[in-house]
Amino acid sequence: MPVLVMKFGGTSVANLDRIKRAAKRVGVEVAKGYDVIVIVSAMSGKTNELVGWVNETSPLYDAREYDAIVSSGENVTAGLMALTLQEMDVPARSWQGWQVPVKTTSAHSAARIEEIPDDNIRAKFASGDRVAVVAGFQGVSPEGRITTLGRGGSDTTAVAFAAAFDAERCDIYTDVDGVYTTDPRITDKARKLDKIAFEEMLELASLGAKVLQTRSVELAMRYKVKLRVLSSFEEQSDEAGTLVCAEEEIMESNVVSGIAYSRDEAKMTLVSVADRPGIAAAIFGPLSDAGVNVDMIIQNIAEDGRTDMTFSCPTDQVKRAEKAMEDAKTAGDINYHDLIADTDVAKISAVGIGMRSQSGVAAKMFKTLSDEGVNIKVIATSEIKISVLVDRKYMELAVQALHDAFELEKA
Amino acid sequence: MPVLVMKFGGTSVANLDRIKRAAKRVGVEVAKGYDVIVIVSAMSGKTNELVGWVNETSPLYDAREYDAIVSSGENVTAGLMALTLQEMDVPARSWQGWQVPVKTTSAHSAARIEEIPDDNIRAKFASGDRVAVVAGFQGVSPEGRITTLGRGGSDTTAVAFAAAFDAERCDIYTDVDGVYTTDPRITDKARKLDKIAFEEMLELASLGAKVLQTRSVELAMRYKVKLRVLSSFEEQSDEAGTLVCAEEEIMESNVVSGIAYSRDEAKMTLVSVADRPGIAAAIFGPLSDAGVNVDMIIQNIAEDGRTDMTFSCPTDQVKRAEKAMEDAKTAGDINYHDLIADTDVAKISAVGIGMRSQSGVAAKMFKTLSDEGVNIKVIATSEIKISVLVDRKYMELAVQALHDAFELEKA
Repeated sequence: MPVLVMKFGGTSVANLDRIKRAAKRVGVEVAKGYDVIVIVSAMSGKTNELVGWVNETSPLYDAREYDAIVSSGENVTAGLMALTLQEMDVPARSWQGWQVPVKTTSAHSAARIEEIPDDNIRAKFASGDRVAVVAGFQGVSPEGRITTLGRGGSDTTAVAFAAAFDAERCDIYTDVDGVYTTDPRITDKARKLDKIAFEEMLELASLGAKVLQTRSVELAMRYKVKLRVLSSFEEQSDEAGTLVCAEEEIMESNVVSGIAYSRDEAKMTLVSVADRPGIAAAIFGPLSDAGVNVDMIIQNIAEDGRTDMTFSCPTDQVKRAEKAMEDAKTAGDINYHDLIADTDVAKISAVGIGMRSQSGVAAKMFKTLSDEGVNIKVIATSEIKISVLVDRKYMELAVQALHDAFELEKA
Repeated sequence: MPVLVMKFGGTSVANLDRIKRAAKRVGVEVAKGYDVIVIVSAMSGKTNELVGWVNETSPLYDAREYDAIVSSGENVTAGLMALTLQEMDVPARSWQGWQVPVKTTSAHSAARIEEIPDDNIRAKFASGDRVAVVAGFQGVSPEGRITTLGRGGSDTTAVAFAAAFDAERCDIYTDVDGVYTTDPRITDKARKLDKIAFEEMLELASLGAKVLQTRSVELAMRYKVKLRVLSSFEEQSDEAGTLVCAEEEIMESNVVSGIAYSRDEAKMTLVSVADRPGIAAAIFGPLSDAGVNVDMIIQNIAEDGRTDMTFSCPTDQVKRAEKAMEDAKTAGDINYHDLIADTDVAKISAVGIGMRSQSGVAAKMFKTLSDEGVNIKVIATSEIKISVLVDRKYMELAVQALHDAFELEKA
């Protein structure tokens, strides 16, 4: 039978009633003749509670223990979903990552899926199970320890299963009914997109539009997984939501498809670093080793052989970054006067594959922000996006102004 | 290095502060030179929350899913305890049941430990770990699914590890400072026992004195594990708490050592059963198959070829018992007019190894209850205990009266 992957996020399984609603949707697809792989997140709030305990216990935690702890939320939902399906007379069982097994690297808290053997679950399908409920976000390392895939990792779990089982489609059920031109909570002019290119979705995801985890989109692009984002709170047709697809499937599009923002980005400045060849490697090597995901990097012009180096990273990695820099300073690998962490910033990005062929987007973006009196602190660009760091207080204003300037309310 | 097993129950790890306090006690033993195996329960309240969700989702749940869900609480505590120890510079890691592995039978929700290979944990001790924090209550079946050992199963986990690692002692840290002659919440005359025989502890545990799980005591008796119950909330000497030991280590004791009670027992009566050879087997076979733990059994004198059959079982198994009886009736295996479940009863028991050599205990018990106007509904006896079922409203009164009658406040 053809396989369908359905993923339900934290708000879609937030309590027993919602799990029941999700299970009913699964039942609809089973009735159509699919063998269904359901990927579940933890009930919303549960992972945060667990992460809070870990941080309070050990700010520089052992990531192996972090993974063992936070993965437990998904196990609970998987079991409850399996029981709910059984109550509906749909043969189902739960699977934890190590039972499938979802084989990952040993990079705890940010592990990558290496292989998902399909034989165990296929055998259960062959013997009568119609649904395999898999705990998302988790896997098992070569050393036999539990790993997690990073925040939002259940999306990646879903796409990886869709690829491993050659699924007909991968439906991501969430609390929004698709991908929007920007966050509708910031402007009511935000418009739902019927389709979006993988590349655009990638940039939006990595820039903080929290609909899909970045790696899930990368995986979907690589393995040509039909990926659909839709709401678990509305009655659904087969055309609901937003289809994330290859560029060539999109007939026409705006130059800019969406405006994304992220509150979770901190600006770190190393003040007065000795400017010598290899200094960038001496700084960013230790950061990488410490698991800090550096995003934007700015190096000022050097004066008197010294320069300031500014970079951004997720706010929850600031402590790690500070420790890595202090250790490198203590070891004599780098030298700086001060390390200033500014967590009161936001990142705003304009994204669109149309940028490749049309110029003037950056100029228009900068002028729009300037007209609103928003000071730009850091700029970074790629082929299909322009990102700026601004004071956090301007975040909403900046998003609204850019949404208007690029006329994103119009299809 | 010698191995010590330390088990912390739910109230001893109820929050991060208590986990820290427990970790400090572990640190004390590590400093003495022990390699320590710490067994942890779920934070108090967590397991009940999970069980509540399971029952609400599926009253006649698939026990395999139940186990996968409820075992998650212990995983969280194990990880947090390992992190807390690491923060104290004590090398530690967490172990989930399947990682050790704790090999059990496939009897989900009531699995028995079959084997605990010690090589994985020994290897970590050899390479520098001083503490192995093991999630209690759980194991893995031959089919690779998660099992649990039944309520209070972490005690059994602790004793099984003590046996498998030939531990010097197994210390059970709990919210009481030892084993009492009865529940101190019911009478302030309750007295802490310095020592209690395995056999007595077995009866007390099985009768609802919730200090230790029955099977943990059986195991300790079989493998000669030195078992100590003590409080995690007081400073401890090596002689604190109550030692559970062999009968011959106890010099002198009262005829009755303790009065136990249980609220969780229901009285079930099959009204007007056809009285024929094999009827008991036809009733209790299906109950056993359905996983109902029948305790007391009473058969009335038959009249006109029919009789009433009364038995008791844990209140949370009443639904199961009813279904098993209805199914057996439908299948034509048994025939009865009505099945009456009375959950408004309590079981009161007097326990003591002295009963073996002294008569008149039962008579004294019945007279005491009669003097208080307490009607006895069912009686059951063994070599070292006498149990009665009474209306629940008389429970406290009955315990107090018996504690006085047998003068248990005196050493």
